[in-house]
Amino acid sequence: MLMNKLDAEQKPVFAEIQAAYQRIRQDIRSTPVLNDSELDKKLGCKLFLKFESLQLTGSFKIRGASNAVKCLVERGQPGDIATHSSGNHGAALARAATLAGRKAYVVMPDNCVKSKVVSVRANGGEVIFCPSTQKDREQGLAELVNKGCIAIPPYDHKDIICGQGTVVVELNQQCPFADIILTPVGGGGLISGASIAAKALIPGVKVIGAEPLGAGDTALSLQQGKRVLEYTVNTIADGLRALVGELNFDIIQSNVDEVVTVSEQGIVNAMALIWQHFRILAEPSSTTVLAAIMESPTTFAGKRVAAVISGGNIDLQNLPFNTG
Amino acid sequence: MLMNKLDAEQKPVFAEIQAAYQRIRQDIRSTPVLNDSELDKKLGCKLFLKFESLQLTGSFKIRGASNAVKCLVERGQPGDIATHSSGNHGAALARAATLAGRKAYVVMPDNCVKSKVVSVRANGGEVIFCPSTQKDREQGLAELVNKGCIAIPPYDHKDIICGQGTVVVELNQQCPFADIILTPVGGGGLISGASIAAKALIPGVKVIGAEPLGAGDTALSLQQGKRVLEYTVNTIADGLRALVGELNFDIIQSNVDEVVTVSEQGIVNAMALIWQHFRILAEPSSTTVLAAIMESPTTFAGKRVAAVISGGNIDLQNLPFNTG
Repeated sequence: MLMNKLDAEQKPVFAEIQAAYQRIRQDIRSTPVLNDSELDKKLGCKLFLKFESLQLTGSFKIRGASNAVKCLVERGQPGDIATHSSGNHGAALARAATLAGRKAYVVMPDNCVKSKVVSVRANGGEVIFCPSTQKDREQGLAELVNKGCIAIPPYDHKDIICGQGTVVVELNQQCPFADIILTPVGGGGLISGASIAAKALIPGVKVIGAEPLGAGDTALSLQQGKRVLEYTVNTIADGLRALVGELNFDIIQSNVDEVVTVSEQGIVNAMALIWQHFRILAEPSSTTVLAAIMESPTTFAGKRVAAVISGGNIDLQNLPFNTG
Repeated sequence: MLMNKLDAEQKPVFAEIQAAYQRIRQDIRSTPVLNDSELDKKLGCKLFLKFESLQLTGSFKIRGASNAVKCLVERGQPGDIATHSSGNHGAALARAATLAGRKAYVVMPDNCVKSKVVSVRANGGEVIFCPSTQKDREQGLAELVNKGCIAIPPYDHKDIICGQGTVVVELNQQCPFADIILTPVGGGGLISGASIAAKALIPGVKVIGAEPLGAGDTALSLQQGKRVLEYTVNTIADGLRALVGELNFDIIQSNVDEVVTVSEQGIVNAMALIWQHFRILAEPSSTTVLAAIMESPTTFAGKRVAAVISGGNIDLQNLPFNTG
């Protein structure tokens, strides 16, 4: 049975995220949740970081990609797979496709992080470069679909959202009773899935998103009550440059309590702080969550905050913080 | 009751490692154990890495240091603390001493890793530099003891060995039924404690050490049946440049099945491989364990290997592998 567009656009329910977790759990790592009491003192809250940077392919994206590809297989839908991605979804989809014996084509912006190109290829994917605009990315994908590929977009898709939501199922087992669930916001795949799982699992929890001010389309869209479709993006957080998706925005509007915007300097300072306290290099998109706490301390003061460090794919020769 | 020299030189038994684990478990992180099926395919064994690089202070050394300082407190032995260290033991001891309201003085070789100096100081310790020889390090420490400090040496001490052994207590809970327990070998604190715990907990387990050929004094000492006390050390693995301790060697002789020496290139290749598969930067001393598997594959073929990645304190601006 083929999934039609309407099905794919229907809002997922929590039972579907639980089903996704059963479907993919053998294909992913259960990533660690770490706390640091010294960092907590600096922040004024109790922070538990789930390091999806240590996930297979170096980001949480393998959760959604694995779920989407396995759903295709379950539905008996054959064919090669295509997507557009700044890299992490591309590498994840390449891995999931390769495991399922399929080819993955990934449209990538030509200013993407070099190590992400390496990773897509290492996982068996084929890279097609395009200019770094939303329109060019979508057009590149449309051309592949015209050639017969099945599109698995990076965030605006029910199976992807369900897969990403599994991160909170796991996080809640490792760190129950969170007051706040905090994730980065780019296209909205992670926070939309996470918010459905969080609201189902944790009574009274707040779900907060962290977004670079330089890619602050989601916060602005929430303010205006509708998706902002023209936005000039300028941020170091290469994984968050996409505009929020349609289905994602719909879920964010009803489930997410707040989207906080953060500065570029805050993102970089947070990278340094995470290296200092955990000896982990998190990519800038990830460290928006820590920047949000540092720049909006009253929102988090005294709370038990469970946050997702979404990825660790960076170019080592080009670290943006003072490493001396 | 003061611990006399004889007690400190006695071989620990497993019950003392269990007691150490109860003593320190609130002061340390339970670090994650990760596996990668793609890496396993390359290596021909099933490898479980315990990432003590993600431990507080960035290395396993906090286990021994916390145990030693808490034992001083339990015995009612007051006073400031001194040690010599390439850095990781120093930072750990500084943290443990600061928590106990004491001052720590750390004699460090002047060619040590810069970030390790920063870390000792960040944890409240005072650094005293010396030339990079075993003799100068020991002399520096002796001077501090003459001034009234209590010496807590980095490895040749019962309380330290018991603390380090707790890593295997935890590892065995996370990854039971290992065929081989594999750790780096420098002064021998980690492997001596680990070997006592491993032989007590895991019937039939082999304990194997990994040592840089350029600091291969332990392998040579085992060959000759006595400690080699003159050895010109030359290795990138700055944490393993110390010669094996007396008590440590005694334990290694009776408990450790083999010490494998590895090449410098192997250590660097292993760093790159760990970054590639786990997005973790392990310090060169740590990656000797992976180098050992790559350079002595028949020893590990088909086995379930549980290995300790001992630390992650490196200078980011000076990575020794190709990061492009």
